[in-house]
This record gives sequence, C-alpha cells and structure tokens, in this order.
Amino acid sequence: MVQYRLLLEYDGTEYHGWQLQPEARTLQGVLEEALATALRHPVRVAAAGRTDAGVHALGQVVTFRSEHVVEPRELRKSLNALTPPDMAVREVALAADAFDARRHATARVYEYRLWTEPWRSAFWHRFTWHVPRALDLSAMRQAASRLAGEHDFSAFRASDCESESPVRQVFHSEFSPTEGLCVYRIEANAFLKHMVRAIVGTLVEVGAGRRRPDAVADILASRDRRRAGRTAPPQGLISVAVRYE
Amino acid sequence: MVQYRLLLEYDGTEYHGWQLQPEARTLQGVLEEALATALRHPVRVAAAGRTDAGVHALGQVVTFRSEHVVEPRELRKSLNALTPPDMAVREVALAADAFDARRHATARVYEYRLWTEPWRSAFWHRFTWHVPRALDLSAMRQAASRLAGEHDFSAFRASDCESESPVRQVFHSEFSPTEGLCVYRIEANAFLKHMVRAIVGTLVEVGAGRRRPDAVADILASRDRRRAGRTAPPQGLISVAVRYE
Repeated sequence: MVQYRLLLEYDGTEYHGWQLQPEARTLQGVLEEALATALRHPVRVAAAGRTDAGVHALGQVVTFRSEHVVEPRELRKSLNALTPPDMAVREVALAADAFDARRHATARVYEYRLWTEPWRSAFWHRFTWHVPRALDLSAMRQAASRLAGEHDFSAFRASDCESESPVRQVFHSEFSPTEGLCVYRIEANAFLKHMVRAIVGTLVEVGAGRRRPDAVADILASRDRRRAGRTAPPQGLISVAVRYE
Repeated sequence: MVQYRLLLEYDGTEYHGWQLQPEARTLQGVLEEALATALRHPVRVAAAGRTDAGVHALGQVVTFRSEHVVEPRELRKSLNALTPPDMAVREVALAADAFDARRHATARVYEYRLWTEPWRSAFWHRFTWHVPRALDLSAMRQAASRLAGEHDFSAFRASDCESESPVRQVFHSEFSPTEGLCVYRIEANAFLKHMVRAIVGTLVEVGAGRRRPDAVADILASRDRRRAGRTAPPQGLISVAVRYE
C-alpha cells in the first residue's frame, strides 16, 4: 500500500460541505468518485479539516492509500480531467505511511472576505459576505490583534463543537484590504467549530461601531458564546493552507 | 419621459451574451424583465457595448426611458432584489435626454485575465483563460506597449465585424500581475469585434516564445487577420469601465 497526499482547491458553493453524505453532493464524495475511476478501486480519503457547506479551500490537504503505484504528475492530470471545474487538484505527492493530514498539522490558515460596497457584487457573491456599509477598518484591526496568543475560545465555538479543549493558539489575526475587498486572515494551531465565522461576525460588529475594539478581550474572558457576535455566513470563508513541520 | 442610466456588473458565465434573443437567457433579456417588473411597463434598454457570450462586466453602462419618475436609490434597491445573484446594479442615475451610452463614450477599458499555473483554478475558472505554462511577462509587456497609439486594427478584428473604420486609438495597453493572475488591461476610444481577444491570443504567443515582441508591429502593418494569433476564449474578458466627457 502506498499513501498519497493531495493539495486540493475548491469553490464550495455547490457542495453540501466536505463530509460524505449518502444523498448529497459533497466534496469528499465527488473526490472519492474521481479517485475510484482513476485508480479502478474504491478509495477512502482523509482530510486535514472538514469544511462546512459553502466554505471554500485553496489548500485542503487530503490523503488516501492505494495498491497502485502511480506517477504523481500523471495522477494529477487524470484527476483534473475527472473532477468538475469547481474542484482542482493542485499537487499530488507520495506521503510517508505514518503521515496524518489532520493530526500532524501544526498550523492552519483561513481567510474571510467581506464585500462592503452598497451594491451586491456579481463577481464576488460566491466568495464574500456582503456587508453593505462602511466599516471602521482601524477598529477591526485593533480588535483582530487582541485574538493573537493562546486563549480559551469557548465564546467563539459552536454549541455542538466536539473538541475536547477550547484552548487554541492564534499566530496571526489581521485585516488587509485587497482590490475593494476586505480580507481577514487568521492562522492558528487549530480551530474550533465555527470559530473563524464567530470571530468575523464579532469583528464586523466592531467595524460597524456597535462594539469597542477591546470588547474582544471581555468576550474571550467570558467564555460565553452568547457574548460574541453572530456567526458570519459560510461563503466568505476559505481554507487557505495547512502547515506541517 | 425620463431617461435613466445604470451602471451594471455581471458574471457572464451563464448568459448567451448581451443581446436579446428569443429563446436564450441573455443579459439584456434578464435586465429588461427586471425593469418591466419594477416599473410595471415594458422597457427597452440600450448599452454602451454588446458583450459576447461568456464575457463579463464590472461597469457596463445601460440607458432606458420611463414615464415614471422613480428615486434612483429606490430603483437600484428594487432592481437588485429582482435580478439574479450574477447580475448587480451598482448605480442608477437620471440622464440627460440626449445622452447616448454607445455614441457618447470617449473611452472603454477592458481587462483580460490569464491563469498560468499548471493546475486548473477552481476559483478563477469563470473569469480566466487557463494557459498552463510560464509566460515571459517582459516580452508580453514589450509587445503590449506596441499597441498603444492610433492604428489600423484590421489584423485583430473578427471577419464579420461590421465597423466602418478599422482604425482605433489605444490609450493604454499593459500587463500587471495580481494575486497569481496575469491581468492585461487595455483602454481605447472604441474596440472592433473580438479585438481584445485577438490581441490577447497574440500576446500569449509572444509570452510563450513563439513570436518576438516586435512581431506586433508587423501584424498591425499587415492588416491581415490570419497573421495575428488565435482569438482568446471569452471567459477571461471583463468590460471594466466606459468613460464619457
């Protein structure tokens, strides 16, 4: 058996999230089908992280095993011919047998895109949350910076989050304006369920002047999900990269 | 009768081009339907330019007349509620009765996006031409700059182009790399049919080393469409802006 590692990009708009579901089109389902066709045997994949319905990825890391030894470049080529246009295999590589995409990840990077013009964007609607008002970027930057460091993120986790510990270490948390878009980028050792979306919902309330930037510290300390802002919608979120040692 | 002027943005992927067709979903058709619902009478629109099937716009200028006097902000709001997510009305304004979006335009700006990574892009596939090879950007820049000025663009026009004169004045013609994409931007007083796509097809051949940068001057001088490169596919093209005095 050989273990392979894929770097996968997808526009999640037309998928019911990552995880296999019997009756729905999911990213795992579509990828496993393409792999089964390419390798001529059923394939089960494992991912660095399960993205929610509507969430996208530029660098999802996926592993699977096969008895066939295939040239990685050839496999990338056939997979890109077998997958739909909203999914792309960026890289295929052989992986050590012990490699575990989820457990061995040392950091994950997410971006969240806001579209703040008064009109809906016909271009960006698949990849942004439309917040049709001017946001105070400097207040949002200040609030975002308070999230860096090791914290208990209970106030920013979904009620059905199954992680044992709510403590996460945030390496970077910052905004950068890009081409009329407002892009929030956060890197941490790992994330709780809906953590990025709850953070973004809160930061947008700071940007709209409904909370002070230093409210973030109080919300963290409260460990109370009700104190943070609403969960931002999924389509603005992109899993950008997963890092390993 | 009042004349109105709209600034329209669209992702042209799922339309059969601008112009009304009885059996096909076109941009003009969908917009006229939304206007008829908003204003409660049939509406005929005129555009600054007719984009081909698959071509996009950030700033298409459209005019129409109505007997109803409507507050522009209200009309924008109802149109954005009535149009699908891949079309957006950025601005609505009253226009002088004599204003003609096509004839009064003094310049038009187009961008063409190339995706040059070896893998297909799941994000950009709607808005780029995938050219999976390294292109010589410096050669392409040199070639692009040769197009600036007043020239006879016969070598870069579609065989069924109906313009009387093939002479156009190009104000800017340049490449700028943006976020892993290669973006070509051209501004001219007006364009011939398929002119930008024939130019891009030729510039990509320069970038791939199959033509020298100064071949562009010879191609222009030849006035022969067969001397220029292939017509680049529509999905990379965006009508960015139309300028008026």
